[in-house]
Amino acid sequence: MTPAQRRNFDRLLSPDQIAFVGGSDAITAIKEARRRGFKGKMWAVNPKRETLAGLTCYPTLDDLPGVPDAVFLAIPAKAAVPAIKKLADMGAGGIACYAAGFKEAGGEGVAAEEALKGAVGDMALIGPNCYGVINYLGNSALWPFEHGGSSPGYGAAIITQSGMFSSDITMSQRSLPMAYMISAGNQAVMGLEDYLDVLSDDPAVRAIGLHIEGLRDIPHFERAALKALKNNTPVVALKTGTSTIGSALTISHTGSLSGSNELYEALFDRTGVISVSNPSQMLETLKYLCVVDAPKGTRVAGFTCSGGGATMLADHSEKIGLSFPPIAEQTFDILTELLPDIATVSNPLDYTTPIWGQPEITYPVFLEAMKDSGVEMAVLVQDYPAASIDDSKIYYQNDAGAFARAARELGIPAAICATLPENIDPETREFLISEGVAPMQGIHETLNAMQQAAQWNQVRQRILQSPPEPLQAAADAKNLVMITEDKGKVWMANAGVAVPAGRCVSANETAEVAGEIGYPVALKMMSPDLAHKTEAGAVTLGIEGEAALEKAVQDMRASVTAFAPKAVTDWFLVEQMSAPPLAELIVGLRRDPQFGSALTLGSGGILVELIADAQTLLLPCSVQDIKIAITGLKAGHLLNGFRGRQSADLDRIAASLHNLCQEFLKHSDSLAEIEVNPMFVYPGGIVAVDALIHEVTR
Amino acid sequence: MTPAQRRNFDRLLSPDQIAFVGGSDAITAIKEARRRGFKGKMWAVNPKRETLAGLTCYPTLDDLPGVPDAVFLAIPAKAAVPAIKKLADMGAGGIACYAAGFKEAGGEGVAAEEALKGAVGDMALIGPNCYGVINYLGNSALWPFEHGGSSPGYGAAIITQSGMFSSDITMSQRSLPMAYMISAGNQAVMGLEDYLDVLSDDPAVRAIGLHIEGLRDIPHFERAALKALKNNTPVVALKTGTSTIGSALTISHTGSLSGSNELYEALFDRTGVISVSNPSQMLETLKYLCVVDAPKGTRVAGFTCSGGGATMLADHSEKIGLSFPPIAEQTFDILTELLPDIATVSNPLDYTTPIWGQPEITYPVFLEAMKDSGVEMAVLVQDYPAASIDDSKIYYQNDAGAFARAARELGIPAAICATLPENIDPETREFLISEGVAPMQGIHETLNAMQQAAQWNQVRQRILQSPPEPLQAAADAKNLVMITEDKGKVWMANAGVAVPAGRCVSANETAEVAGEIGYPVALKMMSPDLAHKTEAGAVTLGIEGEAALEKAVQDMRASVTAFAPKAVTDWFLVEQMSAPPLAELIVGLRRDPQFGSALTLGSGGILVELIADAQTLLLPCSVQDIKIAITGLKAGHLLNGFRGRQSADLDRIAASLHNLCQEFLKHSDSLAEIEVNPMFVYPGGIVAVDALIHEVTR
Repeated sequence: MTPAQRRNFDRLLSPDQIAFVGGSDAITAIKEARRRGFKGKMWAVNPKRETLAGLTCYPTLDDLPGVPDAVFLAIPAKAAVPAIKKLADMGAGGIACYAAGFKEAGGEGVAAEEALKGAVGDMALIGPNCYGVINYLGNSALWPFEHGGSSPGYGAAIITQSGMFSSDITMSQRSLPMAYMISAGNQAVMGLEDYLDVLSDDPAVRAIGLHIEGLRDIPHFERAALKALKNNTPVVALKTGTSTIGSALTISHTGSLSGSNELYEALFDRTGVISVSNPSQMLETLKYLCVVDAPKGTRVAGFTCSGGGATMLADHSEKIGLSFPPIAEQTFDILTELLPDIATVSNPLDYTTPIWGQPEITYPVFLEAMKDSGVEMAVLVQDYPAASIDDSKIYYQNDAGAFARAARELGIPAAICATLPENIDPETREFLISEGVAPMQGIHETLNAMQQAAQWNQVRQRILQSPPEPLQAAADAKNLVMITEDKGKVWMANAGVAVPAGRCVSANETAEVAGEIGYPVALKMMSPDLAHKTEAGAVTLGIEGEAALEKAVQDMRASVTAFAPKAVTDWFLVEQMSAPPLAELIVGLRRDPQFGSALTLGSGGILVELIADAQTLLLPCSVQDIKIAITGLKAGHLLNGFRGRQSADLDRIAASLHNLCQEFLKHSDSLAEIEVNPMFVYPGGIVAVDALIHEVTR
Repeated sequence: MTPAQRRNFDRLLSPDQIAFVGGSDAITAIKEARRRGFKGKMWAVNPKRETLAGLTCYPTLDDLPGVPDAVFLAIPAKAAVPAIKKLADMGAGGIACYAAGFKEAGGEGVAAEEALKGAVGDMALIGPNCYGVINYLGNSALWPFEHGGSSPGYGAAIITQSGMFSSDITMSQRSLPMAYMISAGNQAVMGLEDYLDVLSDDPAVRAIGLHIEGLRDIPHFERAALKALKNNTPVVALKTGTSTIGSALTISHTGSLSGSNELYEALFDRTGVISVSNPSQMLETLKYLCVVDAPKGTRVAGFTCSGGGATMLADHSEKIGLSFPPIAEQTFDILTELLPDIATVSNPLDYTTPIWGQPEITYPVFLEAMKDSGVEMAVLVQDYPAASIDDSKIYYQNDAGAFARAARELGIPAAICATLPENIDPETREFLISEGVAPMQGIHETLNAMQQAAQWNQVRQRILQSPPEPLQAAADAKNLVMITEDKGKVWMANAGVAVPAGRCVSANETAEVAGEIGYPVALKMMSPDLAHKTEAGAVTLGIEGEAALEKAVQDMRASVTAFAPKAVTDWFLVEQMSAPPLAELIVGLRRDPQFGSALTLGSGGILVELIADAQTLLLPCSVQDIKIAITGLKAGHLLNGFRGRQSADLDRIAASLHNLCQEFLKHSDSLAEIEVNPMFVYPGGIVAVDALIHEVTR
């Protein structure tokens, strides 16, 4: 984004003068700007109507009395492009381009979108084919549907790739503090990464929510997400769209372990983006992050006025890794004094109904329990009565106030959680927000948000200490050619990865090679046309002597002839058999046109099919990233002194794999894909027992 | 439950005359009965007050003008017991015993609860230490707090073990059709299984929800749950309370794979109970089951008016096993005609905004798409605008009406789903219920409910075809004695499970035995004091000849001496080495005082520690149950022609394991626990390579 475009985007977000161009959609947009409380000038442009929503119409843009900072454009695509050109020439700030019929329509729309890009100049443009933007902080709106939502003066900026979903969010009943809502549409000019980049600079934006169907510029997104992390602005992403595995990936086994969703998750991990899978969770996590500071750790003081609630808190927390540390001895005695006899002093604490709603008693209980060493956040479960049957509401409010006071005094991030999302009314939610307590809805959503916020804080420290190197988009590799295993292993050896001793010879020399390296040996037929050697019978393992070797050669010829006659060669790889390893991995390196290069590490051997357990990292990555990924694999347990075996030197193993990644990055012009299956892991290092490499031909 | 008690429970649920006994709690209860619209006689009993909530007080129960069908009892435990005795003598129907201070209080309360049980006679009694009961069908209530909720003349019966949670549910904003709410309290007289038993007989009860902290009578619960299944009444259970593993189980390895939660899940699986882990999900699943019939299968026709919504539908459905079958060719053409050009004909179908809210166009679209072959249920995503900003609501309602009409005409279970739970207002929810469409809240909750309902239907067929044999509670086995592996293997062989050839002899005879059975052999020292032979060095595998055997004996003596000198014996098991199997299992049999006998099957070998993958079945079970359990294991894939190996005869293997279970059941007096780790699985059968058996001594 150029500095001029950036300035124009600010004008679009916070305009003094808005032009609404169009018919009935413009009428709604004018009404929505008024609903938002827009105080600037509003102009309507329509050549056929006298008024739009009470505004006198100017027939054309030329007739406008001034230059608009923001334009809501709701006319057909064909007319939109010259209008955009005109606005650029006038020096308008930016456009919310509701107009559709562009790229999303295919055909002529694709050309229209290119023309739009050519016409836009330095202006900021949201869309086309979008709902536009709502500024809840400055009270302006360029929005073609009824909208809800409000702001306490700070809040979440939410950017979506579905107009309807953004509308659904504005209608939600969660008192989520809002800063901006942007419906990004086709992202012809400005994309999610631009919005992320700009909005994390705004101190009133306490968190950013992204609904992502697909990103258009991954390296730019990475930069923007890391900037947000640095700016202490948490980003919460809801990625929708099922995993579709590119055809280039399906030739390898790792393809089944890692599709585009895994690449997105790797991107989020790398940049500290919180990933959620459910719309409600997205809003609750944003609310928590907007209202309270992210907790320093995962240790919680929990409060309920019911045994059932305490149990539910403990159940889900255990699953997601939140802990309720036991109450310290000294605090135990204090709480025993403060609580009724029927209460059991524990964490989570059921403070029991005899003191319910009596803040002079519950306040010290909350305070003392939260003071306990190591408590990093607090939660109180309260389900408020429904409207019109709420005579008892004052009791809940009393305890809520006492809880808020204790948390505020101690500076502890605190939430009140309704077991059922709807059991906390708007008045209570707004009261809690004003008290600095997050009013959370749904017991699982609350605990998940707390866990995500605490984890974000920890991940943030780690990433800021050693930020990742920038991602590089890869060229789209279309013409792939497999190189034979012997050549692949030479490449691996040159890349510093050990391979079994062996040589590639014609049949009549195999015995000599086997004699040199010693039995037992492995025999494999090398052929550029055999991608799946095992299935073709082109692999024999554990050959114990010369006679067996000779028979293996003959059998192999027969077998491959039956499988694929044209693939038969007289070229055999004779190799030393590798000793049983501590663990087997599957290692995949590949390039994606959007994400660049990626490493997939999986639990190998039979585990590949049984549990499909893999970790994907985008490259470049650090040795430490690889070490964490290995440790995260099920097979990682085998490397850690499993059942009395030796432990593996994980640093050395990660360093070897990192080296391999660096070599893969260096050869981005020539190498498309590497798969090593299996990669044997020994205490002291790794050995590539197989190597399937695809080169690019151009 | 005796017939008399059953009749009295009916009186308690649907009383003509209610007595309220107590002070301020009784006042609230009287008001709540009025709120519910109770039309019968209400009497207040209080010796010190003149009136309660406007009712003139009778000083004592003796002064009542008649015999109450139902009594709300809110007096201290000490006074409650004689009052209960008096009411029993009077011939009262039943009591909602809000009074607390019984078993839950410990100490004297335990005796009070025993006294209560002695006093209750034939009366039905809910509690003590409970909120009571609300009858939404007959409009009566014995309930000490404000309550919400309503009924369209049918609904869910919900029974909880947390009064506060039942109150939270009545306050929920979901238009869940209600039949009864029961807060079960201490279950001194009537338990969850009794309520289940009785309520599934009521045709107005379309589904039953259970919040379970613990069950008191598992065999009775099993009978009641199977009866509900037969009565076509789905049961949805929310089990809370984390897994706590009984001390008797921790001696074995399977203990770490299967705790009490696994036993509950096994019970639910066995009886067709739908298990949920989240309160919102419980209510949404109940709502779906109450409003529509359970679908015949998992094939869905999905509709949205937004691309984003269609993607979210597809994403989560893929995860949980719902499918959107592609649109048939003929239907494709019809829909292409009906839909705007910009629409893409697919399932889920985004029918696009140009026809939004125009029922004359959307109705045939819904109808034709639902008519498509193989569609077993339908869902339409709609997020309604919030109250007071809902000028566009009529458009949504128009489409909802068209959708409901199409579904009704075709007899297809149909739901309308708000992406965010709160985005569907009460008026719309009630309209949809009256149209026979489930108004569902939250996209994940909706799809989960649809999947659970469809699966319930299928599970129901299977269980009704071959119902499980009754469970038998087991005696609490406290004094366990381990028998040595050689004796354990004799037992296994007698139970029909193959074991390796071998014999137990003194050191000087080992060579002779090894000679007989042939090298390589395994050597293990037998000692009643060695539960963990491997750790003690009391196992040597793959011994290749007499010299090695002699050395192994010497080394083993030294090693065990170092580990536990008193455990050393001169008693060695010499066994044939077993050939490498297709797969290793871990097999555990144990007894639980509540659940009776249970079988745990786990993926064995290194998988035990790496993935902790296990299936638990309660006994007796069928051969088919065991086959399904094996197939559900990760290691099950190894038995199915994995990587070109032989397939295992699963019927035979399941039959062998079933036989073992039957033997274990037969010896309930003497055997406490069996663990076989590993159990080798070959194409033709199983071999117990180890056998750890604990006997009971009394």
